[in-house]
Amino acid sequence: MQTYAPPLRDFAFLLHEVLRAGESPVPALRALDPETTAAVLAEAGRIATEVLAPLNASGDRAGCRLENGGVRTPQGFAEAYALLRDDGWNALDCAQEWGGQGQPHLLGAAVGEMHVSANMALMMYPGLTHGAYSTIRAHGTEAQKRIYLPPLTSGRWTGTMNLTEPQCGTDLGLMRSRAEPQADGSYRITGQKIFISSGEHDLTENIVHLVLARIPGGPEGIRGVSLFIVPKFLPDAAGAPGPRNALSCSKLEKKMGIHANATCVMDYDGATGFLLGEEHKGMRAMFTMMNEARIKVGLQGLAQAAAAHQAAVTWARERLQGRAVIGPSDPAQPADPILRHPDIRRILMEQRAFVEGGRAFLLSTAALVDAVEHSGDPEAAGRLALLTPVVKAFLTDRGFEACVNAQQVFGGHGYIEETGIAQFLRDARVAMIYEGTNGVQALDLVGRKLPADTGQHIAGYLRETGEFLSACAADGSLPAEFLGPLAAGAADLGEGVAWLASEGPADPAGALAGATDFLHLFGLVCLGRAWADMARVAAAALAGTPEDPAFYEAKLATGRFYMARILPETALRLIRIRTGAGPVTGLAESAY
Amino acid sequence: MQTYAPPLRDFAFLLHEVLRAGESPVPALRALDPETTAAVLAEAGRIATEVLAPLNASGDRAGCRLENGGVRTPQGFAEAYALLRDDGWNALDCAQEWGGQGQPHLLGAAVGEMHVSANMALMMYPGLTHGAYSTIRAHGTEAQKRIYLPPLTSGRWTGTMNLTEPQCGTDLGLMRSRAEPQADGSYRITGQKIFISSGEHDLTENIVHLVLARIPGGPEGIRGVSLFIVPKFLPDAAGAPGPRNALSCSKLEKKMGIHANATCVMDYDGATGFLLGEEHKGMRAMFTMMNEARIKVGLQGLAQAAAAHQAAVTWARERLQGRAVIGPSDPAQPADPILRHPDIRRILMEQRAFVEGGRAFLLSTAALVDAVEHSGDPEAAGRLALLTPVVKAFLTDRGFEACVNAQQVFGGHGYIEETGIAQFLRDARVAMIYEGTNGVQALDLVGRKLPADTGQHIAGYLRETGEFLSACAADGSLPAEFLGPLAAGAADLGEGVAWLASEGPADPAGALAGATDFLHLFGLVCLGRAWADMARVAAAALAGTPEDPAFYEAKLATGRFYMARILPETALRLIRIRTGAGPVTGLAESAY
Repeated sequence: MQTYAPPLRDFAFLLHEVLRAGESPVPALRALDPETTAAVLAEAGRIATEVLAPLNASGDRAGCRLENGGVRTPQGFAEAYALLRDDGWNALDCAQEWGGQGQPHLLGAAVGEMHVSANMALMMYPGLTHGAYSTIRAHGTEAQKRIYLPPLTSGRWTGTMNLTEPQCGTDLGLMRSRAEPQADGSYRITGQKIFISSGEHDLTENIVHLVLARIPGGPEGIRGVSLFIVPKFLPDAAGAPGPRNALSCSKLEKKMGIHANATCVMDYDGATGFLLGEEHKGMRAMFTMMNEARIKVGLQGLAQAAAAHQAAVTWARERLQGRAVIGPSDPAQPADPILRHPDIRRILMEQRAFVEGGRAFLLSTAALVDAVEHSGDPEAAGRLALLTPVVKAFLTDRGFEACVNAQQVFGGHGYIEETGIAQFLRDARVAMIYEGTNGVQALDLVGRKLPADTGQHIAGYLRETGEFLSACAADGSLPAEFLGPLAAGAADLGEGVAWLASEGPADPAGALAGATDFLHLFGLVCLGRAWADMARVAAAALAGTPEDPAFYEAKLATGRFYMARILPETALRLIRIRTGAGPVTGLAESAY
Repeated sequence: MQTYAPPLRDFAFLLHEVLRAGESPVPALRALDPETTAAVLAEAGRIATEVLAPLNASGDRAGCRLENGGVRTPQGFAEAYALLRDDGWNALDCAQEWGGQGQPHLLGAAVGEMHVSANMALMMYPGLTHGAYSTIRAHGTEAQKRIYLPPLTSGRWTGTMNLTEPQCGTDLGLMRSRAEPQADGSYRITGQKIFISSGEHDLTENIVHLVLARIPGGPEGIRGVSLFIVPKFLPDAAGAPGPRNALSCSKLEKKMGIHANATCVMDYDGATGFLLGEEHKGMRAMFTMMNEARIKVGLQGLAQAAAAHQAAVTWARERLQGRAVIGPSDPAQPADPILRHPDIRRILMEQRAFVEGGRAFLLSTAALVDAVEHSGDPEAAGRLALLTPVVKAFLTDRGFEACVNAQQVFGGHGYIEETGIAQFLRDARVAMIYEGTNGVQALDLVGRKLPADTGQHIAGYLRETGEFLSACAADGSLPAEFLGPLAAGAADLGEGVAWLASEGPADPAGALAGATDFLHLFGLVCLGRAWADMARVAAAALAGTPEDPAFYEAKLATGRFYMARILPETALRLIRIRTGAGPVTGLAESAY
């Protein structure tokens, strides 16, 4: 049986003690007062536990069904969605101007983690809606905003993103879908899109598809792709859904996981679409949605790991097998809880160190989104762009691994679906794939984000980390068992950057052969910094007389595990990066 | 669509050029002449490709059904099983004395890899039968051998192993099933066993369950457990199946994978059983079966990785996306095969280096099984016991990882079941869990196998590796890019052993906290040695004028990848081992 306990104490610690939202220059962050925030998070957590989590396994078993062109979501999903919508959760971090609550993305991310932990498949329906909202808000005309933003914000409508076609995944330049201009300024959209999450469902009165297609006569390849708003029902001037548009879901994919989310083949048969942004500049607009989605996908990896870890801890407490080498916890029992065995502790600590470190990293990135949105500061925007592929790929690669490890704690009981632990792994797996595979994230990081703006953003990250380390060394605020490993990890990162900068231009294949390793090296250091931030706060708190010393002691203990056993992986990653292309491409293509 | 191409050239290379079966002191190995062996393997490969692989995805979709107490296997399974049985494949490495073909386990392992690559779930029906055969052969009375061995050898009957109960998995001392002695010398077996692979099915006229249970009045815990032969139909004195025994399958588990294998809850309601081996010495007998099964499970991890890798290579050749940074392979095509992209090459090389290195390691272990069986040499037996947990856990952990990586190559197409790649991951996942979880394998390795016989077996392994390295350095037979990394890996292994030997006795929790890391460190070096063996042969072959230089060049290229990018992980594993228990158990149990 899946259950879920919201990590409220951790959120309070991160928001107010580590990130110090109250001292932020961003008004929306500064406005997060601890009491109100705690109440909001507690209510969001209650919904996760009481409403969303109970539908997770049943939704997985039932899946979605395609009936007469409509998709039926699993029992209970419509009611749960209505509750989220009616209580305003969809609109939490949308602008008040469009009916949202104007809360910062930081709070949205905390709420999102809990809701996605409890039910990833269900949360994908509203999840992409926010991306559609952001894209229309950034690139739409005033009329488009007036028609589409209020219902997307309120959750009366949902949104989708339509990129992939059978022959065209990562390489969107291969796109074939066409958009023919009509006399009234609209376009006729024709083509097939695949892997469309939430492409059709029974949760709302309308669905707004954002669709990439080619306007005939435009440039070849990716520079000839435009973005269109293609609603399922065409709204009238007042925004009321009217005639059915010429689009349909022709197939639901059978997938390894997220059974309860409808992954649709969408057929556009001369559907009416409206240009969003400029002609042939579709990718620019779509990247608004993709960048937001990539952070949300990173959150999925983290959230599934968090839920799976909780389940594994519960199992490890309750399952009695064998006598612990450190002595029995209760000799009257026939055996010890497996939590007492060192190898089980090791595997649980790996999960915990990832989940808590990943959560801190993700929330700091969400706060950065708020800062960028508020200030438009190009340095902050560059940092966010740099970190986005790391958030997406590192948190999903490691989140999946944590789910595998959580399943392992269950032994044979983990492999049967009855215990519910396998679902976290099956659901989490997709996050490594969609919104650009993790390999593509690594290429984006090494090929685009590192050299962007003459490399100043990664240089800034390294400089800031160096300054942080110097300051910690000077004031003794960071315990020694954190300072040394983080300095070593940061040095490895610096070496990796230097190698890529010196070798990459002449040998791009060599740089790209190490792209995934570099992304993991960077991610390891990002979580190392997050752990250092937490450790400083925890150590300072323990120097006083905190109400709950056990919380801070646990933080330090978990952080020490990360520093001693996880972060040293940076050295291995650096070794691999430095091997360059030789070992990777040494085997001739013809020899495969 | 899943397809399968048997790696016949690789088998010929390993059997005759690397392992040099023809020069073995073991007669059954010496008898493996290249022509006959090639013909046998080709025929086994043909069956894998034409008979077994086509049933893999359909079996996964259909699963098993429990109807009126009987289990219906998927369509086509009965016919495929009958073909394997009638052509003598079940009996390949069984003794001629009992109707087998008397072939060595080495050949059995090569055939097994192909058949398990093609259809793991189907091959689990005959797979456990071999273990039952070996256990009865080693521990049975003459009468038991006469009745049970011929039908198990021929495949007319299958066998199972019944250990797990709901409250008792790893800790078999918690077992509750009872065996009450009867006046006629038989026992009445009562209890429930769970997770019984192939516990019930429609492939054969009888099923022989080997069941662990307690004889009342025996010692508490694991020392009071005995092993029983409990046939589904009780054979008469001539061995013909007679009355139905009081046992039944009451439930089939719904699992993440191996859907086509029946995982049964077995109820024994006063079933008639016959003591196998001595009273209260059930574990000793069962370990015959478990040790054999552990090597077979390691083979499953390897075999699924091999099949998944083949599928990923095929996809990477055919899927066109993007332009390669090294230049287009065919400018007339709209895009390049993704095989041309460095990050795809990296992920394929990781799989290939594991599959080919793992295959060499596994076959060398199978040859060791033959040597032990032939000579009974305690040194060889100690080496085999030492390597068994490494074969089981390293090959399944890494095999699963290779399946995940193969799926990743498919992008979104990997997550949908239609392409068939997800099944390899789902099926391979169980191999990390059953026959003792991989964590239990690590404890077995560090807690039992390292200190066994005053540590002489690991000392022998280290010494032999050192001598190998010295010989290679002296005669220049091993290319430098292999020699250095292997020496470094072996040194890390030596350091790990030394640390465990010095710290373990006083701090067993510290030793066990690093058990999984030590197992991986050892596995990395085992594959490193396998790669070095292959590299020497390949380098020597290329110094002459071989018929197929490309084969040997590919071996060297793949081996270089392993040495440059995979083997250096030993340093990280050693760092973790040396951290001891502190970071792992630093978080109090109460803080979870």
